[in-house]
Amino acid sequence: MEAKVTMTLDGIFDLVLSVLAANGLSRDQAEAIADIVTRAEADACRSHGLYRVEGYVAGLRAGRVNPAAQPRVRQVRPALLQVDGDRGFAPFAANLARPHLIAAARENGIAAMAMTRTHHFSALWADIEPLVEAGLVAWCFVVGQCSVAPHGGSAPLMGTNPIGFGWPRPDGAPFIFDFATSAAARGEVELKRLAGEPIPAGWGIDADGRPTHDPAEALSGALLPFGGHKGSALSMMVELIAGPLIGELTSKQVATLGHRDDGPPPGGELFIVFDPAALDGSAPAAAEEFFLDAKAQPGLRLPSERRYAARARSHASGVDVPSGLLRRIKALMSSPSA
Amino acid sequence: MEAKVTMTLDGIFDLVLSVLAANGLSRDQAEAIADIVTRAEADACRSHGLYRVEGYVAGLRAGRVNPAAQPRVRQVRPALLQVDGDRGFAPFAANLARPHLIAAARENGIAAMAMTRTHHFSALWADIEPLVEAGLVAWCFVVGQCSVAPHGGSAPLMGTNPIGFGWPRPDGAPFIFDFATSAAARGEVELKRLAGEPIPAGWGIDADGRPTHDPAEALSGALLPFGGHKGSALSMMVELIAGPLIGELTSKQVATLGHRDDGPPPGGELFIVFDPAALDGSAPAAAEEFFLDAKAQPGLRLPSERRYAARARSHASGVDVPSGLLRRIKALMSSPSA
Repeated sequence: MEAKVTMTLDGIFDLVLSVLAANGLSRDQAEAIADIVTRAEADACRSHGLYRVEGYVAGLRAGRVNPAAQPRVRQVRPALLQVDGDRGFAPFAANLARPHLIAAARENGIAAMAMTRTHHFSALWADIEPLVEAGLVAWCFVVGQCSVAPHGGSAPLMGTNPIGFGWPRPDGAPFIFDFATSAAARGEVELKRLAGEPIPAGWGIDADGRPTHDPAEALSGALLPFGGHKGSALSMMVELIAGPLIGELTSKQVATLGHRDDGPPPGGELFIVFDPAALDGSAPAAAEEFFLDAKAQPGLRLPSERRYAARARSHASGVDVPSGLLRRIKALMSSPSA
Repeated sequence: MEAKVTMTLDGIFDLVLSVLAANGLSRDQAEAIADIVTRAEADACRSHGLYRVEGYVAGLRAGRVNPAAQPRVRQVRPALLQVDGDRGFAPFAANLARPHLIAAARENGIAAMAMTRTHHFSALWADIEPLVEAGLVAWCFVVGQCSVAPHGGSAPLMGTNPIGFGWPRPDGAPFIFDFATSAAARGEVELKRLAGEPIPAGWGIDADGRPTHDPAEALSGALLPFGGHKGSALSMMVELIAGPLIGELTSKQVATLGHRDDGPPPGGELFIVFDPAALDGSAPAAAEEFFLDAKAQPGLRLPSERRYAARARSHASGVDVPSGLLRRIKALMSSPSA
């Protein structure tokens, strides 16, 4: 059993802020990332929490990410915003642009935002949550690292290509889900590799296209989409709409850039936001009957319920962080050559 | 082997038109349905072709469907249209509203259409195709008949809730997929039942929540979502956005209405349409590299390729229709009491 250290959420936020500042990242960007990492730890999403800090720093140290990025928001059509992330990390760009997106959705009924020239490394529920808290129905899509073979194929063609969706609920926590369109997220496979555990059948194939239980083989071969040809079609959809549609590269094109630093790949994000009040303000209330019906089925858990339970625990009692990970993150305070 | 009759596509169109007219449906609605049924037969989508004519007629004879519906289109926000289908079948309402949706998407960058008070019984690729042919990226969502248990649940909560998506390609047939978010479409399970064949594992559970291979047991128990908790989350999403969001009922609420005529259930459809030219007219061209990469993987078939191949064959040589089905459809020309 790995040794753990209990940290408060404030402690995690301050640690991440310090590490990123020590690596030259602007205060605005560092705060946005510290916030998103802390929220992932609070919700027990380990693969998107502190585990990602080394990658953020790697992207900075490689000189790929602009530490002083000044994102710009442009309204290209009444219901369509374009964000130039100025090669910075995604969270600050999203924070800057979000009020414009919310206003455009309320005015037009539906609005979209094409965020480009960023580096995205967080879970999509974190991008969805503030939009749903504003009373909106929201989707977002990101092209992940090229590692997924299409159904019936034998080599990586798509990213892990996650989809996020959120629905506001009048009383209580919103209905939010996000998932990789691969059978498993790349981060999950990497955690298996770090833990020395096999991966289940259906997660990956090796470099020759054969099924494998070895996480390292799947990472150098290909992951598989979830749900056969249907999940594969969804993964292709994300590749198209969060790649070429918004003026970004496909995951395979990004792979040819040859970045080897384990930091977030360059890319964008497509947001689509719908204002339920534009049709009938009672939609979220009317939908509560669906959730009542769902909860009437014994043992049924709605997406995000586990996260909300973890969040309540973390705010009360803090978070257990593996000592080894904490040590590696603290070591990033000093420059690599020091 | 069941006996078959070869029919031309024009012959199928005329047959459907006559049968629907003989059952009192307005010319406008009958033409729209004859078109959509003929296209399904041309594309070898049997479960959405002639097989559905009995259901269309059943809905009419039950008095649920308005044979003289006059759909109305209203622009509730610059990028949001609302269509009142006047209790008719969906295809005519969609045809009437489509030009307004296309115009709204081009003007605003993105647009949505909430189509309500209709009866939808066709495959979603048929709704997507004309939007993609106009150069747009399109999604649509429909709440299906309540028959799907959520992942981890034991009784029907959602409809088969299909999702359709389309992407325009500059040269050649568009990339379009549509699929039920159940492991199998209800129509597929019904075809298995009619053929006396078992259903694969993972398609359904019986009325006690136990896995079953019997299509009849699954139809009286529950179907299962595709792809475990991820497909289940997507099915819930469709239930919310093509039900309460557009002012329609959930599939479970529709089930309590007690319609027993096997015709299309009352309900609506949500369309979301994005104009790639609003951001960068070159997106569809840029995406062709993705399709080239895909086709470089031996044996990989893109969604809809099989349909397009069938379409070419059908236009050249017609379609084989089971004699029994043809006989039943022709019998619908006379009134039920005749």
